[in-house]
Amino acid sequence: MTIANVHLLLTGNELMTGDIVDSNSAMIAQQCKGIGIKISRKVTLADDLDLLAEEIKHLTKDADVLIINGGLGPTTDDLTAQALALATQRSLKQHPIALAHLETWCQQRNAHLGKANLKQALLPEDCEIIANRVGSAVGFSLVLNGCQILCTPGVPSELNIMLEEEIIPSLASQSNFTAEMDITRLQLFGIGESTLQSMLVENFPDWPKEVEVGFRASSPLIELKLTIEKNEHLPIKIFLIKKIKALLNDHIIEEIKDKPYSLAELVLQLCQQKHLKITTAESCTGGLIASDITKVSGSSSSFEAGFVTYSNKMKSKLLHVDEKILEQHGAVSEQTVRAMAEGALAIAEADLVIAVSGIAGPGGGSAEKPVGSVWIAWGSKDKIYSKYFCIKANRENFQRTVAARSLDLIRRLLIESNQTPLYF
Amino acid sequence: MTIANVHLLLTGNELMTGDIVDSNSAMIAQQCKGIGIKISRKVTLADDLDLLAEEIKHLTKDADVLIINGGLGPTTDDLTAQALALATQRSLKQHPIALAHLETWCQQRNAHLGKANLKQALLPEDCEIIANRVGSAVGFSLVLNGCQILCTPGVPSELNIMLEEEIIPSLASQSNFTAEMDITRLQLFGIGESTLQSMLVENFPDWPKEVEVGFRASSPLIELKLTIEKNEHLPIKIFLIKKIKALLNDHIIEEIKDKPYSLAELVLQLCQQKHLKITTAESCTGGLIASDITKVSGSSSSFEAGFVTYSNKMKSKLLHVDEKILEQHGAVSEQTVRAMAEGALAIAEADLVIAVSGIAGPGGGSAEKPVGSVWIAWGSKDKIYSKYFCIKANRENFQRTVAARSLDLIRRLLIESNQTPLYF
Repeated sequence: MTIANVHLLLTGNELMTGDIVDSNSAMIAQQCKGIGIKISRKVTLADDLDLLAEEIKHLTKDADVLIINGGLGPTTDDLTAQALALATQRSLKQHPIALAHLETWCQQRNAHLGKANLKQALLPEDCEIIANRVGSAVGFSLVLNGCQILCTPGVPSELNIMLEEEIIPSLASQSNFTAEMDITRLQLFGIGESTLQSMLVENFPDWPKEVEVGFRASSPLIELKLTIEKNEHLPIKIFLIKKIKALLNDHIIEEIKDKPYSLAELVLQLCQQKHLKITTAESCTGGLIASDITKVSGSSSSFEAGFVTYSNKMKSKLLHVDEKILEQHGAVSEQTVRAMAEGALAIAEADLVIAVSGIAGPGGGSAEKPVGSVWIAWGSKDKIYSKYFCIKANRENFQRTVAARSLDLIRRLLIESNQTPLYF
Repeated sequence: MTIANVHLLLTGNELMTGDIVDSNSAMIAQQCKGIGIKISRKVTLADDLDLLAEEIKHLTKDADVLIINGGLGPTTDDLTAQALALATQRSLKQHPIALAHLETWCQQRNAHLGKANLKQALLPEDCEIIANRVGSAVGFSLVLNGCQILCTPGVPSELNIMLEEEIIPSLASQSNFTAEMDITRLQLFGIGESTLQSMLVENFPDWPKEVEVGFRASSPLIELKLTIEKNEHLPIKIFLIKKIKALLNDHIIEEIKDKPYSLAELVLQLCQQKHLKITTAESCTGGLIASDITKVSGSSSSFEAGFVTYSNKMKSKLLHVDEKILEQHGAVSEQTVRAMAEGALAIAEADLVIAVSGIAGPGGGSAEKPVGSVWIAWGSKDKIYSKYFCIKANRENFQRTVAARSLDLIRRLLIESNQTPLYF
C-alpha cells in the first residue's frame, strides 16, 4: 500500500495568533520524509469545534492519512477529541486505557487527578490508543472515509517521541517502506553554513545527482546530510564521503550513528577513554562551560570542579593568579588566562583544563580590547596553549561561541589533531 | 468596514518538507492581532500551480482578506504570480513599477538583471503594487470575489517591513481600528499552567467576558495575559487584576512593561538596588545557576565568584565542607548543602548565597535518596534557609528546575516575601 496523500491539521489559538511559532509541522514532515512520505497539505485552525469537525471531514476525503496535532490537553480550549467525535458521529466515552495511563501518571507525580485532566480520557468511542510515555494525554486514532486519522499531542517533546516510537514505524510498515534509503550524517563545528556550501560547490563541481545533500544548523554545530535512495548508488556516496572527510578533516566532529552528540559529550567520552580529568576556569562565560559539561550524565567520572572567577580579586583568591599580572596586563590577557589555567589545574588536581577571559559586552570594551575580545587557554600540565579571538556577537551568542570553541580546542588536543581550525 | 475573515496561504516546498520552520505566519498573525484582526484559517501548500490556483479560489470565497506568503522569487518554484493569474483568469504582464524597482535594485548592487529576475516583474494584469524597500520582489494585490488578496515575500525581514510599513497601516485604516486594546502581561513562576487555570476557574466563576485571558509557557516562567478591547472596560480589568494579584501573590514575579525579565535578571536588579553581592555553590546544577546569572549584562556589579564542586573531595577542598559531614550524611544532605553555602559566603566574601546538592540522574539514585532528590540552601550570613525537594524530570529539566527554584527563593528573600511557594 502506498501512502500517497498525507494531510496535516494543526489546532490551537496560540498558533493562529502567532503567540507561538509552529515547529511541530516541520517535525512531523521531516520524520515522514525519512520514510519517503510527503505531506501534501497543511491546515491550521483556531480552537473552534465546528470549524475543526468540518475541516476533518473535508481533509479525510482525499487523504490516506490525516495527522492532527494539538488540542489534547485538559483545558476548555482543547477540542480534538470532541471535534473528531462530531466529525465521525461517535459519542465520547471514557477510554479505559487512557484513564489508566492518566491515573498512573498522576500517581507518579503525587498529583491530583482533577476533573480537567479526566477530560483527557474522554475519547471518541472505539478509537485506538497511541501510547504517550512522556505525557499525560495519550494519542488516539480511527478511520474515516478510508483515511487513517492520528491525533497527536502539541507538546513538541511528546510529539517527537510518539512519532519516533509509534507513528513512523507504523506508517513505515504499512507503506512497505524499504530502507534502501541510506543516509550519512556528519556533524561539524567551526565552519559556517555559507562557507560549507561554497567549499562543496568549489571542490565538487560535478556533484553526483544520485546523492542528495542537506544542511541543518543546530547551533553551534552544523549537520551535513548525504542521502541516496537506491542501494546501487552506495559506492558513489562512499567515494564522495571519503573526499569530503579529506576536505573538511577535523571540522567533522563525528558521524552520527544513533544520536547526535554535543561537543561536551565527545570531550567527556575522550576523557573517559583516556582516564583523564578536566577542570574549567571561567570568567566571561560565567559557568556555561562547566554547565555544558555537567549536562552530560556520567560527567562526574571526568569532572570534579569548575571555577567561575568573575572579578580580578577572585581570579587571585581562587586561582592564585598573581595580582601583578592582573595589574600589568589586565584580566583579558594571555598572561592572565594562562595563569588561570595553571591555577585551576593545580587546585582541582586535574589533567586537562579550559580557561577563558574576555569581554562579553555590550559594555566593558575599549579601543585596545573591544567587546568580543577573548583569550582562551587549554591544555595539560605538560603544555598549555593559548589564543586570542575577537567574536562579534550579542552577549549570549558570544558566551556560547567561546564555550563551543573551548570545548572544540580540547577535543582537538585529545584526538591529537594537527590541523588548524578555520576559525583561527 | 469590519475585516472579519482573514485567511493565510503559505507556499513553499521547504515548508511542506519541514526543511524550514514556518515563522512567517506567526509574524503575520501577531502583527494583525495588534490591530484587532484575527486569522481564521491558515493553509500551507507545496509549489504546485494548479493546487495553488484552486486554493486561492476556494479561500477567497469566505474571506475579506487573503494574505499569500512566499513564491515571489526568481526560481522556477516561485509560482504565486502565475497561480494568482490562473485563479483570476488574467494574463501575466510585465508591470512597469515592478520592473523599475528591479532595475534600480540590481543597479545599486552592481548585479546583472537576468532572465530569472525579470520573472519577478511578470505580474497579473492590473494588479496593485505593494512596495518592498528591502528586497528585489515587490508585493502585489488585487480583488477576487470581494476578497482582497495580498501577495507578500517569503524572506522574513522583507515580510516584517512590508507588514509594518504598508499592509498593517492599510488594513488598520480600512477597518477603522482604534487602538483601544489594553493588555496586561504578568509573569509567574512556580505554578503550572493546569493549576493556574484551575485556580482561576475556581476563584473567578463569573469571569467577566470583557476580559480575554491567555496563557503562554516560556519555561520556567508562565505568562498570563489579560486583554480588553475597549477603554470602557478598563475598570473591570483593573479590578480583576487586583484580585488576581491577591490570589497569586508572590508567584507573580513581575508585570511586563517593556520586555519580560528572567528570574536571574530580577534577582540581579534587587541585588543592585540593595548593594548586595551574591555567590553560588553548585553540585548537581554544575554551573547552570552561575551561567544564568552571568548571561545578564552588568552582573559583575553583584557577582564575583561561583563554585562548581562536583565531587565530595572538591566540596571539602574548595568550600571547606567538613569531611566528617560528608562521611556521615553524604553529599545530598541538609548538613552538606548548608556547609557549602557557609563556605561559599565566606570565601567569595558575598552577602547572599545559593547552594545546591542533588541527584540529577538518570543514574546515582538509591532507595533513601532517589533520582530527583535535591537540597537547596539560600540566604545570608545572618540566616541560611534550606529545603528538600524531589523533582521528577529528565536530567536537563531537573537541572533547570533546581536553578529556577533557587533563584526564585533568593528573589523571595530579597522582596521579603512571607508567602510559601506552591512548589513547597
